[in-house]
Amino acid sequence: MNIVEFFELSSGKWFSQRTSHHLDFKPSEAGKSDLVIEMVDLADPAVVKLCQQCRIDPALALCGARAKWNGTMEPGGKKYAGSTLLVPVADPENPNQGQLLSESGAAGKTPSLGRYVVGDDDAVTLITEDKTLYAEERLWFASPNLRLRTSVLKRSSGFSLASFCSEIRMGVSKPAETAPPKA
Amino acid sequence: MNIVEFFELSSGKWFSQRTSHHLDFKPSEAGKSDLVIEMVDLADPAVVKLCQQCRIDPALALCGARAKWNGTMEPGGKKYAGSTLLVPVADPENPNQGQLLSESGAAGKTPSLGRYVVGDDDAVTLITEDKTLYAEERLWFASPNLRLRTSVLKRSSGFSLASFCSEIRMGVSKPAETAPPKA
Repeated sequence: MNIVEFFELSSGKWFSQRTSHHLDFKPSEAGKSDLVIEMVDLADPAVVKLCQQCRIDPALALCGARAKWNGTMEPGGKKYAGSTLLVPVADPENPNQGQLLSESGAAGKTPSLGRYVVGDDDAVTLITEDKTLYAEERLWFASPNLRLRTSVLKRSSGFSLASFCSEIRMGVSKPAETAPPKA
Repeated sequence: MNIVEFFELSSGKWFSQRTSHHLDFKPSEAGKSDLVIEMVDLADPAVVKLCQQCRIDPALALCGARAKWNGTMEPGGKKYAGSTLLVPVADPENPNQGQLLSESGAAGKTPSLGRYVVGDDDAVTLITEDKTLYAEERLWFASPNLRLRTSVLKRSSGFSLASFCSEIRMGVSKPAETAPPKA
């Protein structure tokens, strides 16, 4: 699998269950959201603008993908919603890894420049890092209709959060995949 | 990393936070437990007996490890506790994978024979399978003192459960590991 195929397989509408474990023993949080992922044309002005903001030649962009979510977090019933545009740009010497450009579209937010790595096991690792925060997310498909994600957040004081999402494709009319996933 | 080193790094006392997402949209469950993992001598009668029950030459066992847990699951506050003895036996042609013998010690329970695979990324995948159930668990270290686990359960009707554990080593006197984990 390459990163473009990964985003293509991710396209669609998902029901996402999220759990965050605070590693300082605070109570964990649970969220449920609708998640929609769609491919965005490379000629889309938003893709071109994001590349330009990150000083990347838009011709190097491999694809564009937009994720939108809308959900509720417990305890408290807090609503959360947002969207992110993602654009991968491969390293010239290694197409299985590269830069990942992203922007939330929120006013005042600057684009973010992270890294992606596609593993031999077809899992995708996304890394964003600045002076105070290191975030690593791992995404993989247990089947075409079940996507899993884990993430860890690390601050200067050490790891602070570990999260898990299980995402079920919605509106699938064919039966569940029955062949075991490869180990 | 090899499977013996993985169990050695896992040895110790951990605080484990567990979340299970039911994929049929039932409410998720959250557990907290103490988890103790200790190496067991290859000459220990329990290791030898487990090998013999699985018709494996005890001389082929790579190591023994026992995990014991004691916790509470929410909602409901249900207590859960148990222990498992694990014994890996490498494939002759590939030491990074092999059979994983396990037994819970509970009366009437027969030993279980699964598979382990140590990945290039040092994650360990454990697979147990019978006619009606396929269970795949992935375990890895975010740092020496933070161990993560995901698992999926699949029945003939499709995937039924996705779980996540974050495990923090207890009683660590030195500061948290600050170097970012490798991607």
